[in-house]
Formats: sequence, structure tokens, C-alpha cells
Amino acid sequence: MKRNLTPVYYGDYLQLDKILGAQSLESTRYGETAHDEMLFIIVHQVYELWFKQVLHELNAVIDIFNQEEVKDQQLITVVHRLHRIIQIQQLMNDQISVMETMTPQQFLAFRDYLVPASGFQSIQFKRLEISLGLKREFRIDFDKQSFYNRLSEQDRALLENLEKKPSLFELIENWLARMPLLKRDQFDFWQHYKAATDTLLDNDKKTIYQNDTLTEKEKQQELRDWQSTRDNFDALFDTQKYADLTEQGTFRLSQQAMLSALFIKQYSEEPIFNLPFQLITALTDIDEKLTIWRYRHAMMVQRMLGTKIGTGGSSGHHYLKKTTESNRIFVDFFNMATFLLPKEMLPELPDSIRKYLGFYLGQN
Amino acid sequence: MKRNLTPVYYGDYLQLDKILGAQSLESTRYGETAHDEMLFIIVHQVYELWFKQVLHELNAVIDIFNQEEVKDQQLITVVHRLHRIIQIQQLMNDQISVMETMTPQQFLAFRDYLVPASGFQSIQFKRLEISLGLKREFRIDFDKQSFYNRLSEQDRALLENLEKKPSLFELIENWLARMPLLKRDQFDFWQHYKAATDTLLDNDKKTIYQNDTLTEKEKQQELRDWQSTRDNFDALFDTQKYADLTEQGTFRLSQQAMLSALFIKQYSEEPIFNLPFQLITALTDIDEKLTIWRYRHAMMVQRMLGTKIGTGGSSGHHYLKKTTESNRIFVDFFNMATFLLPKEMLPELPDSIRKYLGFYLGQN
Amino acid sequence: MKRNLTPVYYGDYLQLDKILGAQSLESTRYGETAHDEMLFIIVHQVYELWFKQVLHELNAVIDIFNQEEVKDQQLITVVHRLHRIIQIQQLMNDQISVMETMTPQQFLAFRDYLVPASGFQSIQFKRLEISLGLKREFRIDFDKQSFYNRLSEQDRALLENLEKKPSLFELIENWLARMPLLKRDQFDFWQHYKAATDTLLDNDKKTIYQNDTLTEKEKQQELRDWQSTRDNFDALFDTQKYADLTEQGTFRLSQQAMLSALFIKQYSEEPIFNLPFQLITALTDIDEKLTIWRYRHAMMVQRMLGTKIGTGGSSGHHYLKKTTESNRIFVDFFNMATFLLPKEMLPELPDSIRKYLGFYLGQN
Amino acid sequence: MKRNLTPVYYGDYLQLDKILGAQSLESTRYGETAHDEMLFIIVHQVYELWFKQVLHELNAVIDIFNQEEVKDQQLITVVHRLHRIIQIQQLMNDQISVMETMTPQQFLAFRDYLVPASGFQSIQFKRLEISLGLKREFRIDFDKQSFYNRLSEQDRALLENLEKKPSLFELIENWLARMPLLKRDQFDFWQHYKAATDTLLDNDKKTIYQNDTLTEKEKQQELRDWQSTRDNFDALFDTQKYADLTEQGTFRLSQQAMLSALFIKQYSEEPIFNLPFQLITALTDIDEKLTIWRYRHAMMVQRMLGTKIGTGGSSGHHYLKKTTESNRIFVDFFNMATFLLPKEMLPELPDSIRKYLGFYLGQN
Repeated sequence: MKRNLTPVYYGDYLQLDKILGAQSLESTRYGETAHDEMLFIIVHQVYELWFKQVLHELNAVIDIFNQEEVKDQQLITVVHRLHRIIQIQQLMNDQISVMETMTPQQFLAFRDYLVPASGFQSIQFKRLEISLGLKREFRIDFDKQSFYNRLSEQDRALLENLEKKPSLFELIENWLARMPLLKRDQFDFWQHYKAATDTLLDNDKKTIYQNDTLTEKEKQQELRDWQSTRDNFDALFDTQKYADLTEQGTFRLSQQAMLSALFIKQYSEEPIFNLPFQLITALTDIDEKLTIWRYRHAMMVQRMLGTKIGTGGSSGHHYLKKTTESNRIFVDFFNMATFLLPKEMLPELPDSIRKYLGFYLGQN
Repeated sequence: MKRNLTPVYYGDYLQLDKILGAQSLESTRYGETAHDEMLFIIVHQVYELWFKQVLHELNAVIDIFNQEEVKDQQLITVVHRLHRIIQIQQLMNDQISVMETMTPQQFLAFRDYLVPASGFQSIQFKRLEISLGLKREFRIDFDKQSFYNRLSEQDRALLENLEKKPSLFELIENWLARMPLLKRDQFDFWQHYKAATDTLLDNDKKTIYQNDTLTEKEKQQELRDWQSTRDNFDALFDTQKYADLTEQGTFRLSQQAMLSALFIKQYSEEPIFNLPFQLITALTDIDEKLTIWRYRHAMMVQRMLGTKIGTGGSSGHHYLKKTTESNRIFVDFFNMATFLLPKEMLPELPDSIRKYLGFYLGQN
Repeated sequence: MKRNLTPVYYGDYLQLDKILGAQSLESTRYGETAHDEMLFIIVHQVYELWFKQVLHELNAVIDIFNQEEVKDQQLITVVHRLHRIIQIQQLMNDQISVMETMTPQQFLAFRDYLVPASGFQSIQFKRLEISLGLKREFRIDFDKQSFYNRLSEQDRALLENLEKKPSLFELIENWLARMPLLKRDQFDFWQHYKAATDTLLDNDKKTIYQNDTLTEKEKQQELRDWQSTRDNFDALFDTQKYADLTEQGTFRLSQQAMLSALFIKQYSEEPIFNLPFQLITALTDIDEKLTIWRYRHAMMVQRMLGTKIGTGGSSGHHYLKKTTESNRIFVDFFNMATFLLPKEMLPELPDSIRKYLGFYLGQN
Repeated sequence: MKRNLTPVYYGDYLQLDKILGAQSLESTRYGETAHDEMLFIIVHQVYELWFKQVLHELNAVIDIFNQEEVKDQQLITVVHRLHRIIQIQQLMNDQISVMETMTPQQFLAFRDYLVPASGFQSIQFKRLEISLGLKREFRIDFDKQSFYNRLSEQDRALLENLEKKPSLFELIENWLARMPLLKRDQFDFWQHYKAATDTLLDNDKKTIYQNDTLTEKEKQQELRDWQSTRDNFDALFDTQKYADLTEQGTFRLSQQAMLSALFIKQYSEEPIFNLPFQLITALTDIDEKLTIWRYRHAMMVQRMLGTKIGTGGSSGHHYLKKTTESNRIFVDFFNMATFLLPKEMLPELPDSIRKYLGFYLGQN
């Protein structure tokens, strides 16, 4: 019970003098107030507040995974915080509809005053991307070259420094790869798994051959796709092939991490994997929502500016659409469904494995 | 084309130093940082930013209706701005889900530090209520007495001053009442209307009598309801009865305004009434979304605090639930459906009336 | 791997001949097709499909709780299915906006043809209410008397039969009350708890006395509220008082169940309570979403019909608004926040208790 | 007032025997009931019901535009119905979250039973695409070849027949092109417009040159983009260039239609253009929501199946992502922002033009 506390007042607590005093219209400065510029400013400020909150949660999660051991209680906290991020992302995605109440014509009334400001200069958004795992080498060419040139020295240093620290992607990758499971050899899960996939893929091949609705040309295409799936499966257990496919962009997660994640997804209904599965699902949701946001944002820019160059002096919406797919982070958790087998094709998890894993996951 | 403009940078333009520097956790001040207090602050700051935007649009709409004449072009602007308010309200309603990611337990970790701050102290929210039309006399007792006591002198003066100005409700009421329509006597629309309602109500009465699934007691109840509907209809054309029912809280709009609104709703598919109808619909939506926000907010408070007294020293959720219904503003636009007749029971609008109205509504 | 399967075609699989052939407009039957009646039919059919899915999940959950023992793996399944129900509820709530694209005038064009059909006749919705725990005695008077009179013999029998089976509310109540925790006496958690609440409530009382913004009258009101909270706390450990308050409607859950739930919420961050806490939270969300749906539905009816009698021959929206609060099921999980203490006021959970509970909850 | 009506009962009216009796699980047929197959069926059935409603509205809109003249009153109806479609689309997009409560593992439990059924066989969805304006020649290669092979004779005939009728796209295009505006020569709006664009583009060019944050390589890229914008502008008034760019996929609308749409967007705040502008905006929203649905659907399929071949015997998500952009219909309304000029650069619309247009648009 707290005592002798200083009384707190709503407006002071929220520092509303700052928050509500931070809207200066450029159009007003030039004597031609554009009614709709207020919306433009406030929508962006709200985004920045949400980014701050998302970074607050994300950094707390990163701190947890920076430890050698992640306890069950901490996994609960992690999942809780990731779910909060997802709720905020949902709101941020819907917020695009608010921006879209501004017509292109209304935007034109003040757009020229904003040159060369650009959403690309949002440091918090870059911090978010980098902290999630979007390091420079993954970003597309245009982005690599120019983004850092636009920043102030201080901001550039901050981001470059951040790029040297382990991202959530890397931490999760390590945490997955560390999972002791795969070093245990008396239970040959992967033997079972390989046999089952052979059966499964043979069956898929038959499905293609028997599909009478396909033309010969299509059949050939399907068979090429099938072969590529076959190759992906093989790569799971072949270090060299895995490295090759990683090079080609098929995989981003390390082989060890991929196998652990696959194991967790296969046995997601096991209590012992409940939290790790919730974690993987939450990261998948975050990637999905961020991708949808990028896509919706690109369409909104197209609608507002067409193919015009943006206020930052670059043509926006083509670039934005390209980043939608290229900037995905946890895309392996999507593609992983490729490798999942139906439950009935999998062996029961033996008790010894359950206990062993329980030890690692803190449920002992 | 603008020339010689000062270059603008993203962070400066949005004054992010203020926006992102306005989060000081009370729990940190007392050396016991509560991770979730950040969410509490940011959620409230985002609400305040949206309130600022809503007030920006609302005041622009009020300015338009403060003029003697409202031109068609201005009605378009009004409807556009009200639609923007509605989009923001949708977001504000959904934002409650973000707050609900905080468990009661997490809230308890810093709740005591906030005493006696309270959401009731949001000046912008009060401005919003007052500007929409929630004057002191409509608010429930508790609210009337105490709200003003909690404010600073300056804020109190601001709000008291605002209460003296015409609200959107009053301006819309006057605008509706001014509509020349009802003074036109060669087209006796209301004669038609009265005859039709007699037929309609007689039919409803029969429906009740013939409803075999009702018990005798229920039938009596239904008949009492029917009688009350009959009385309401009669009041539409009887100044004394209308005044009596207004006294009892059945109506809030003046009789003249009510009749104009009814006329517009009856002929909503007439091009001439398209904008006025969009206006009435938008105001109905705003009232509905605000009401839903109050209701969801009350549930969230109940979930967070149960029946505990709030940080402002008052038990929150019962009070909040009471205000949900009592603080409605455009409720007449909901209840008005009572008086609507099917299209086939109404006379065609004669050309002379169309033209006459067109003159008033600027479509000449 | 499945073999020799019959090929399946999309339209046959989904029985689209039935689904898409089930829209016969009454207005067409009378030769006056009302364009918007199609929307009315389809919106209701979609609701019924969702009700079917919700019942599918709900019944599966009920089956699990009908067993003597609920294993961890099953709790995971339960929580998963409740989360699916919540997602569907979200959609059903938003679906009201689709219905609201129909103006009252458009509805009037076919409303008379529907007499005396009424949404009150949805058997699936009643099944849903009853299965959740809304037995006859909890429903308000009007409902009690008339609902059953409107049904066919067969439907009445089905529902009356269902009312005799344990509802989800009762099953959860029993499951909570069965929790062995409270019979364990070496760890006197409740002793700690009582001491802490005394401190807490004394402090709240002081807060009221020191709140200078309250008038004397308000202060008295706050003190009465405080006393009522004090009484509620006392009742937690006093069987007679608890029974009295249950009689008055303060509590719905049994005393034992309430204490278990409270314990779970207090220690929600303990891994051992993670699933039970997710379960309680999901049930709270379901109650909240159902309540919001009722409220939005009532407003929509008001907007469509005003205070007119509905097609079922009863005045709808007043009744619907009354049921919003009276028909709540898991309201104890909301009010329970009243009894929560800040984490720092609680003792650490001793290992012996953790183990003992782990045994019951299957985590051994 | 309707009399002598047959009483209607809820369940009969909605034909719930059909609706609720149309769920037969394939997995049950093979004796291995998969709990989650019910969700799969119901989600798809709900989609089909919404498709039926959307087609109902869309066909009514098409009927209106099939007339020689579209009156103002009808434009109101058109906009109202398009807004209803948008609300339904919003719901359909959110419905993907319900499907995503099914894990890939749960889907695998019954996926094999569904071979070779595929969402590509939804006739209603194809009808929707064709009616909106997605004729065969616009669809990507794969689609062109295979889709029609999979259909029954009857369905194929239905769709091929539909492809011969004018789509909404074509009807809108004609309606825009018919607008008399451009044949009026005493007001040389386009002269004004051309002069203004020259100024504007020169300025944009300067902005690029002065942007010091760009590398030389980037500058060249920007200048190429600028040149392409310049070419697009020139094409607006050059029939041959317009035809060339149409060939290259830059434009889809005819030149005449494009100019009318541009005129409407430039003067969207003129009362006379209010309805046409609402129409264009609604069509833009429909295209946007459909595109977002495709994108979210593609991600969901990726999440569920990875790169596996789908039940229809084709690898789904790559194909689906490709269609997201290629299958857009009203994309000109997005890109059109390229050509918009700020209001202050445009001449006032002279009264003679207003009246002349008013005649065409029915507001006389």
C-alpha cells in the first residue's frame, strides 16, 4: 500500500501541454491554412506513440531472450507482450482508413510545404524493423543505399549501433537451435518423419498425375513444383542443401532452429509445447500484420499520389509494394507448413522425451 | 505552386521530441517501475490526440452552421467531416481492446500512484460533449454536482463559457426548424400523413389482438405500448402534448425540427434531401458510436476495478453505465423511426415543393 | 495417408444448392419485391451459420468439462476453442454494421410481410444462451413467460431438455470448486489475504475522506459504496453473508468457486495457473462480446423501428436493452477485480502448494 | 398497409432446415471425424452467402447503368448499394481471422478428403469478378488456361455468357465517356490544366535536382520516373500516346472516360459532382478491399499449406499473390492521383458549365 503520495492530475500526468501543443501546421506558417493538415499531423503522431509502445514491449521481450535461460514464467510474459503488440498492430492497420478520409485533392493543398519530409525518416519505425530482425542486408537495394543518407548523424549512429545487437529474429533462432531435443538419439523422431514424408510426397505426385483437369503443360508445372517441395524436404536433413537453399532465399532460419520449430509445430497440442507454440504463432501474427500494414500503406500512397514522386523526393508506392514481401521477417513460420505431417502419421512422443524437454523448458 | 519553402524534416514537423518525451511513469518516480504503466499513459495520450482531431472537425462544422445560410457545397463539407469523425470513433472504440490487454493485476501495480487523477478530468472530452450538445441540465445528478468542482479555475471558465455557446445539437435543431417546408400550405403533406398513420396504427392494434402467442397479461402490456405510440403520434401535431412529452423526456428536439427531420427521412431518396439525409444519418452514427464507446468503457472499468472506487475517488463503472443512456444527444433520430411510414403510403412530392425546397437547400 | 477417396467438388461439398437456394422473399410472394429483403434474409442466415459453429465449439468444450478430470492437454483444446468463439463473436458484432446499411424506410417496405416472425424464435440462439448458463430463472420476467409459448412443441421440448443438463457456467463452477487448494491448511493464504485487504480498504477510506473535490453529499455516497465493498470482502469468508449477497444478486458463482477463481487471478503469472487463467479470461471475453452484441443489437432495433412494436408483436428495443445487463453469465469474473490485491501485498506461493496444485492440474 | 397475410415463422422464413442441414463432414464419411472441418465448411458457406448478397447489389447497380440515362435519384441508389457492398467486404476481410484460428495441423486432419475441391471452383466468386470487369484477357496466363477446364458444362456456359455482357467496369467507362463536358469548347478547362501541369512538373524536376540526400544513381532513377510521369501527362491529350500506354498496361480506362473522371475528381467539392465523386470513391474502395482480401487470403493459404500443392492439385499461394495486383479492376482511379492539380491552380467552374452539366446529371 502506497502512502504519502503526491496527488496526480490527469492533464499533468499525461503531459497534455506537450501532446496537445505539438501540432503546427506548415500551411498556416505560409498563411494558407489547410484544414486537413491537422489530420495528417495527428495520424502520424498517433503512429509514433504506438511505435513507442511497441518498442517498449519488444525491447522487454528482447531482454528476456538475451538471457542464457528463459523460464516458463518469462515465456508467459513474452507471449502476453507479443499479444499486446498484435492488438496495437490491428489498430494501426485500421488507422489507414482514417487517413483515407483525406482526398488526394485535400492532400495537395499542403503537400508541397512538407518537402522533403518523408515517412522513411521515422527512426522509431526503423528501430522496430531492425529490432525485429530486418538488418541492412535483407533490405532491397534502393533502401540500403539511401535510407542512411537521409538521417542525422545521431540517428544514423543509433541505428547502426542497433544493427550490431542481436535482433529478436536472431535471439529466437538461437533459442530454438539451443533446444536439446535434436541431440537426443534414442528416440528417432526424424526417422519416422522421413519415412512419413516419403509416403506423403509420393501420394501428392499421384494426385498430380491423376488430376484430369490439368493440361499437359500445367502438369509439367505442377511436377516442377512438386520436385521443388521434394528438394526442400531433403534439405531439412542435408546441411549442404540447406545452405544452398538459404543462399537462394528459401530459408532464413538456421537448420537447427528450423527443425526445432518444426518439432514444436508438429506436437503443438502437447502441454510442454503450448507456450513455445504460442510464441511461434504470435511471431507469425506479428509478421502477418506488419506485412498487411505495408501493403495497405502502399495502396493508400498510390491512392493519394498516384505515381507522383513523394514529398521525400522519391516515387513512393512502387517501392513500398516491393518492400511488402521482401521485408518479411518470420516468413519461415509461414512456409513451414510445407513440412507438417498429419498427426496420425507421427509417433506418440515418448515420456522420456517429454521429461527431457520439460527440463529445458522449465516445466519440471 | 509553392516556391522558396524551408525544408521540413519528419521528426521536427511532428515535434516528436515533445510527443515521445511526454511519458513519465509515476511508478518510476517512486522507484518501482511498473512495465505496464507505459501502456496506460500512451493509450490515454492517443485518445487525447484523437479528441483534438475530432474537436477540430466538430468546430469547423459548428462554424458552418453558425452562419445564417448553409449552402449545398458546405453541406458536402459537413458530411465529409462528420464521416471522418465516425472513422476516428470506430478506431477509438476498438482501442479499448488494447487497454484490455492489461490485466487488473498489472493495473494494480501502479494504480495507487495515480490518485486522484481521473478520466473525468479530460477537458477535451468535456468540450466534445458540450459542443455536441450535452449541456449541464441533461447530465445526471452526480455529474452535475461534482464534475466542475474537480477542475482548475481556467478549465472551468473555458467549459462554462462553452456551455453558453450554441452546441451542434442546437444549431442542427435551428437549421431543421428554419426549413420553409412546413409553412407551405397548398400541399397538405401532413394531412396525408395523419390519415396514413391512422390506418397503420389501427393495423398494429389488430396485429396485437391476433397474436395468439401472447398471454392476456402480455397483450395488455402490448396495448399499453401501442397507446403510448398513439399518443406520440398525436403529439407531433399538438403543441401542448409535444411540450408535455418533451418534459417527460420522450422528445429532445423541438416540434418544428422534429417534423422537418421526419419529412427528410420520409423522402430520403429524393435527390433534394440526399445531403440533409446523409447529415442526419451521420449524426445518428456519431451518437451510436459514442454510446457504444461509453458502454464498452464502462465494461472495461468493471473488468479492471470491479466495484472498487476509482483513482479519482469514486466508484466508476456503475456511474459510467448510467451515463451510457442518459448522455445520448441525437436520440430523437433513433426514436424517429416510430413515425416513419412505408413509402407506398406517402404521396409523391409535387414539383412545386421540390423547387421551393431546392431554393432553401441551395440546389437552384 | 488417405487412399481411394471419392473426388470432391467445391459446390457439392458445401451443398451450395441448399445454401444458395434458401432465399425466398416474402415481398416477392405478394408481388411487390423489396430489393432489401434479400439482405435481411442473408444477414440472419449468416448469423444462424455462425451460431451453429459456436454451438459446435461450445458443446465440445462442455463435453470436456463433463468428465471427472480435465487434463492439461484438454485445457489447451478448451482455450483454443473458446478463442475461436471469440473471433466469431467479433465478426457477429461487426455484422450489425451491415444490417445498418438498411434504412428504416427500406425495412418498412417488407416488414409487414414478416409478422409474426421474430428473432426471439431463434432456437440456436436460445440453445447458446442456455448452454452458456442462462437458465430460465435468470431471465427477466417478460422473457420467462412468453418465450416458450412461441415455440413449436418439438423446439420447446428440446430447450426444456437442455435446461436440465449442466451448462458451461455450472461445469466451470464445479471445476473451480473442486480445486483442492482450499482444503490445504498449512499454507494460510487466506490469512495473508485478509490482513492485506484490511490495509487496502482502510487506505481507500482515507482516500475518500481526503478527496477535497467531493461535496459532503458525495462523500456520504462514496462511503456507502466503500461499506458495500467492505461487506463484499467479508462475505468471501462468511458462508451466511455470501448466501445473502447471492440472494441479492451480488454473486452468481458459488463461494468455493469464487475463491478458486480469485486465487487463480491473483497468481495468474504462475505457470501452473497459466491455462486456468487463460480459460477465465476467455470466458470473460465471451461474456463481454455477447453483452456488446446485445447492446448494439438493441440500438439497431431502436434505429430501425423506434418504439414501434416489432414483427413478433412486441416492442423490441426496450426489452432488448433490459436483457443486456440482466442476461450476463460470467459477470463474477468482471466484478472479481474488486477483490484483487496488488502483487506486492501477496505472499510467494510455496513450492508445496505449487506441486500439490500441479497434481490436480495435470502438470506433474 | 398489408392485409390477410399468411403468418410467417422465423425458422421457416429463413429456411433453416436447408441452411443448418447443409454441413456434412467428409472426415465423418470416412469414420475419422475432424472437429475442425465444421469450421472449414461454415466459413466457406458464409462466404458464399455474402457473395450472393454482393451479386444481388452489384446486378441491381449494373441494371441501372444499362439504361441510356442514369438519373440523380438512381445515382443515390447506386452509391447506397455500393456502400453496402463495401461493408460486406470489410466483414469478409476480417473473416480471414476466423479461418486462421485453424492451425495447419488441424487442417491436415481432413485436407486429403477434399481433393480435388478448390476455392477456384466458386462460381459466384467468378461471377463477381466477371461482373466487376475481370474479363478473361486480363487474367494471368495460368488462370486463363485452367480455370474453365475445371468447371461443369453448365457453369462454364453461364460464365462464358456473362463474359459477353457489359461489366460494371465497361458500363462506368461508357457513362463517364458519355459525359458531355468535353465537347463544350467555350470553357477551355484543359488549356488551363495543361499550363498548370507544366508548372507543376517543372517544379517536381527541380525538387529532384535539389534533393541532396540522393546519390547520383538515385537521382537518375528519379529523373526517369519523372519522365515517365511527364509522358503520362502528355498521353492524356494525345490519342496515339494514350493508346500506346494502354497497350503497356498504364491505363485501362478509355481516354474519354479518364478525362471525365479526372474532371470530376478535380471538382469533387462542387455539388454537381458530389454523387459522381461518391460513385468513383466507392468503386475505388471496392477495388481496394477486394485487393486486400486477395492478399490476406494468399497469406492465409501460405500459412496453412506453405508451398504444398493445394487440394485442387495446384500450388496455391504463389499464384494467389500474383493475382493480387494483376486482377485489379478500377486501378485507374488510384493512379489518377498522378494527374490531380492543387485546387488553387485550377480555374473556377463557370456557371454555364455548371448548368450544362447539371442538365446531363439530372439536377435541373
